[in-house]
Amino acid sequence: MFTAATAEQRFVLDHIVRLGEISPEATSGLVDAVLEGVGQFAAGEWAPLERVGDTEGPRWTKDGVKMPAGFIAAYRAYVEGGWGTIGSPVEFGGQGLPVSLSAAVLETLGTANLGFALAPMLIVGALEALQHHGSPEQKALYLPKLATGQWTGTMNLTEPQAGSDVGAVKTKAESIGDGKWKIKGTKIYISFGDHDMAENIVHLVLARTAGAPPGTKGLSLFLVPKYRLNDDGTPGAFNDVHAVSIEHKMGLHASPTCVLSFGDHDDCIGELIGTELGGIRGMFTMMNNARLNVGLQGVEVAERATQRAVAYACERVQGYRDGKAVAIVEHPDVRRMLLRMKAQTQAARALVYYAFGQLDRSRAGDAEAGSRVELLTPLAKAHPTDLGNEVASLGLQVHGGMGYIEETGAAQHFRDARITPIYEGTNGIQAADLVGRKLSMDNGATLFRLLAEMRTEAEDAGLRQLIDACEEVGRNLLGCDADDRLAASYPFLTMLSVGVCGWLMEKSGRLAARSGSEPSFLRMKQAAGRFYVEQIVPEALGLRAAAMAKATLLYAVDAETFAV
Amino acid sequence: MFTAATAEQRFVLDHIVRLGEISPEATSGLVDAVLEGVGQFAAGEWAPLERVGDTEGPRWTKDGVKMPAGFIAAYRAYVEGGWGTIGSPVEFGGQGLPVSLSAAVLETLGTANLGFALAPMLIVGALEALQHHGSPEQKALYLPKLATGQWTGTMNLTEPQAGSDVGAVKTKAESIGDGKWKIKGTKIYISFGDHDMAENIVHLVLARTAGAPPGTKGLSLFLVPKYRLNDDGTPGAFNDVHAVSIEHKMGLHASPTCVLSFGDHDDCIGELIGTELGGIRGMFTMMNNARLNVGLQGVEVAERATQRAVAYACERVQGYRDGKAVAIVEHPDVRRMLLRMKAQTQAARALVYYAFGQLDRSRAGDAEAGSRVELLTPLAKAHPTDLGNEVASLGLQVHGGMGYIEETGAAQHFRDARITPIYEGTNGIQAADLVGRKLSMDNGATLFRLLAEMRTEAEDAGLRQLIDACEEVGRNLLGCDADDRLAASYPFLTMLSVGVCGWLMEKSGRLAARSGSEPSFLRMKQAAGRFYVEQIVPEALGLRAAAMAKATLLYAVDAETFAV
Repeated sequence: MFTAATAEQRFVLDHIVRLGEISPEATSGLVDAVLEGVGQFAAGEWAPLERVGDTEGPRWTKDGVKMPAGFIAAYRAYVEGGWGTIGSPVEFGGQGLPVSLSAAVLETLGTANLGFALAPMLIVGALEALQHHGSPEQKALYLPKLATGQWTGTMNLTEPQAGSDVGAVKTKAESIGDGKWKIKGTKIYISFGDHDMAENIVHLVLARTAGAPPGTKGLSLFLVPKYRLNDDGTPGAFNDVHAVSIEHKMGLHASPTCVLSFGDHDDCIGELIGTELGGIRGMFTMMNNARLNVGLQGVEVAERATQRAVAYACERVQGYRDGKAVAIVEHPDVRRMLLRMKAQTQAARALVYYAFGQLDRSRAGDAEAGSRVELLTPLAKAHPTDLGNEVASLGLQVHGGMGYIEETGAAQHFRDARITPIYEGTNGIQAADLVGRKLSMDNGATLFRLLAEMRTEAEDAGLRQLIDACEEVGRNLLGCDADDRLAASYPFLTMLSVGVCGWLMEKSGRLAARSGSEPSFLRMKQAAGRFYVEQIVPEALGLRAAAMAKATLLYAVDAETFAV
Repeated sequence: MFTAATAEQRFVLDHIVRLGEISPEATSGLVDAVLEGVGQFAAGEWAPLERVGDTEGPRWTKDGVKMPAGFIAAYRAYVEGGWGTIGSPVEFGGQGLPVSLSAAVLETLGTANLGFALAPMLIVGALEALQHHGSPEQKALYLPKLATGQWTGTMNLTEPQAGSDVGAVKTKAESIGDGKWKIKGTKIYISFGDHDMAENIVHLVLARTAGAPPGTKGLSLFLVPKYRLNDDGTPGAFNDVHAVSIEHKMGLHASPTCVLSFGDHDDCIGELIGTELGGIRGMFTMMNNARLNVGLQGVEVAERATQRAVAYACERVQGYRDGKAVAIVEHPDVRRMLLRMKAQTQAARALVYYAFGQLDRSRAGDAEAGSRVELLTPLAKAHPTDLGNEVASLGLQVHGGMGYIEETGAAQHFRDARITPIYEGTNGIQAADLVGRKLSMDNGATLFRLLAEMRTEAEDAGLRQLIDACEEVGRNLLGCDADDRLAASYPFLTMLSVGVCGWLMEKSGRLAARSGSEPSFLRMKQAAGRFYVEQIVPEALGLRAAAMAKATLLYAVDAETFAV
């Protein structure tokens, strides 16, 4: 039921990311070996645990969270296979390959087992925060373990009163000298906050030091291991971090979502990462990375849901064509759903990989790529996760009544997908980021340069019309007040995302038409590209009215009246 | 958390259905008494069981299906309250009121407890099939019990090989004389196929008699009680109908979805309803009714999800406006979601109630209304169920991370809603019905008359444009071959539904502006109407390209290539 999307990943890395320009080390042979290797690994070790993760799931005990049978061995195999090391820095035992390639590895793991893949995904965030903001000692002690995945990482931001408003964090850090701090507080929604797959867990914790100002400016970032390190760097004494409970979520059951209590016995010791009151910088390092990776999760669930629906549609015989009983894949409306799923999955992947590619270029010193990935991050988080939900829902629909029965598996994708538009900044927060910080960082210049580049390549009249509409809306929003900007933010985010995807999909279709190898893969790619441009791009033009609308109507009635 | 949408129901019955024209018995006082009465009943008796139904759910035992604690008493209270009798025929103990009023009763019950309300909903289908096709003896014996809900009903169509293709039914009926038939076969997906809330269950079963031709023409409809009737009409001996299992569904857990085995011991006796080989007529009587009622379920889940999201948004403090901490309802993008939920819920209700009103008029002899409800049935089934899913998803999103935690309740609506676009004919089947039978029944005349009426009333330029686009697509489809029609069917169904909803919502907004009472309710109604016309109608225009597209692209690659 699971196959890694190797040919498609390779196509996108070659033609959208243009990996060869980014990294001479990432030779064609190496890329093939990585993509195919992780595909085989994921199929053999991770995909078979998907349903166990969903139905059994992790178990809370007073001695910590226990993963379901099979996960511990499968995680060990991941570490031993070196799959965590692809994008990690060479000096700490990693392979130092482009992040767009390590994203492909993560995609394959997540397609095989979305919830499980949250463990490696979170390691990347912790690793990058330490790499950019940690002290040499911290890097030496922690990075080699995170680079291989021997230890896992977590992001501890949210508290009951501090969700989208991270500035409301109350967890306290008190200096006890020697560069050590006592941590006390409760964090919620901590993915893989506790488990028994690794020797140690590296918690990165946002907390407030004594006398810190209110809001985000008063936050500092702390490194808080589950087990304190002995002098030789091995895990030692328990550090008073307790998983108080795990949440009963609608999906993503393989990932234990913990309530973590730090310092119940006043004995939880952390170290500052970077400077005091500099927490928000470290947090953004983690979050920006996590946002692209959550966007990637949208691709993952879409890919898996599509594979499952295609397999079912080719096998389920129902109804007739030309008097002959046929599999439902032969019926026009089922084909429409499947082609839409294919097109949306490819579009989501193109968008996220393109953003990762810009991140790689930015790290290599390309300033324009740096601005572009900043602009694209809210799009690459929000739109693919919306698409993951749409595609998972279509996949369930293709199954008919069977789709609603849990044993079929389609329902799990639908449930799993639903968290992705919420966590790592809700998609509404992404839209606010787009029309706020990202648009205003240079008065729209990065956006308009991107749109200009898209316009020079776009051929389809509808696509050009959409690009023009995005420009019109973008210019309009720059002159709006905050309420109007926010009222239009989500429709604009979707329009612009479809515009970028349309540009990349049309280009992919053109390139596929010119390529000679793997003819059926490339024919499918052309069909998906045409469907995207001919049917999905026009839908996005329908959002122009909402993206140009003012906030007035939203406030035409007061809050209480909504309850009438 | 639950309040019946009484003011809104009343508004729609008065202004969209125009109930006064349909039934002089349905006086203003009576309508108020019914709507408010069932609202109180549902709040007190049914809504509190919503989560128990979800988490505990019915239990299969070898002695039959057992409902969770509380359901038996709550069902008895429903029967004793007379809530089942509103729309049932007077001669069999019902109140004979319009179906649009009994729909409002069903809506309130389903908003309180979607899965539970499937029990009364299915009774209506069985009742109508018997009323229209049963013998006088069958009516006398069964209708009084179904009219009150003392006995429940089921629809037994689907078999493993016969889903959307109902003509593939294999269940056998063998005549044993005396008007009796032996029934043998297995049916799947039978909602409330077994339970312990009522003294008897009246199964309506599609089966094939000896020598019957293949396909739907060979089907006959049988009445198969769970317990055979004694001479005095009371339930007697068990009739060899076994619930073999209940499905593990993603949602709607309160409703036991059974695999029913008829005649395991060769001792299951049924009676023919109507004539042999006339099963498909009886089935359509049940199904058309059920389709409107499933559309109504879309309204129900949307209403409940909206209520829950509004309550949460008014209570959850997060973030700032003008330097003051505020509840999230004050943020523009949250308001946009809530206003969209309000608008879509009202639109779905307007569409379904309008269709029920046409059904009432048709039953009173209005032929145009009869054609119109036939045309509108696929719209009124499919579009509101799509909207129920959209609104439940937005409701979950408004809750942020909390929405993904089952205890909050938003996730249940999201899971429950997902079956409604599938059962009673998938929404794809509805779209095929629209562009096939419904469009061709009179070469589009009913559609074009409806569009002409809409055009005379529509004021907004975008709405008029959408109406024109629907006409253009409708005329185009009439000249297309079957594949092209089916390829365009779903986008056309959505466009046309939004057109009809836009017409009804714009009109409602106008009427609300003119009314004087309940000012805050009417202001909300105007805002929802404007939002619908200004933001949702333009989106539907974006579907024109897909609705005008040919099937060619869908078949540009062959089935196997989808798996590449």
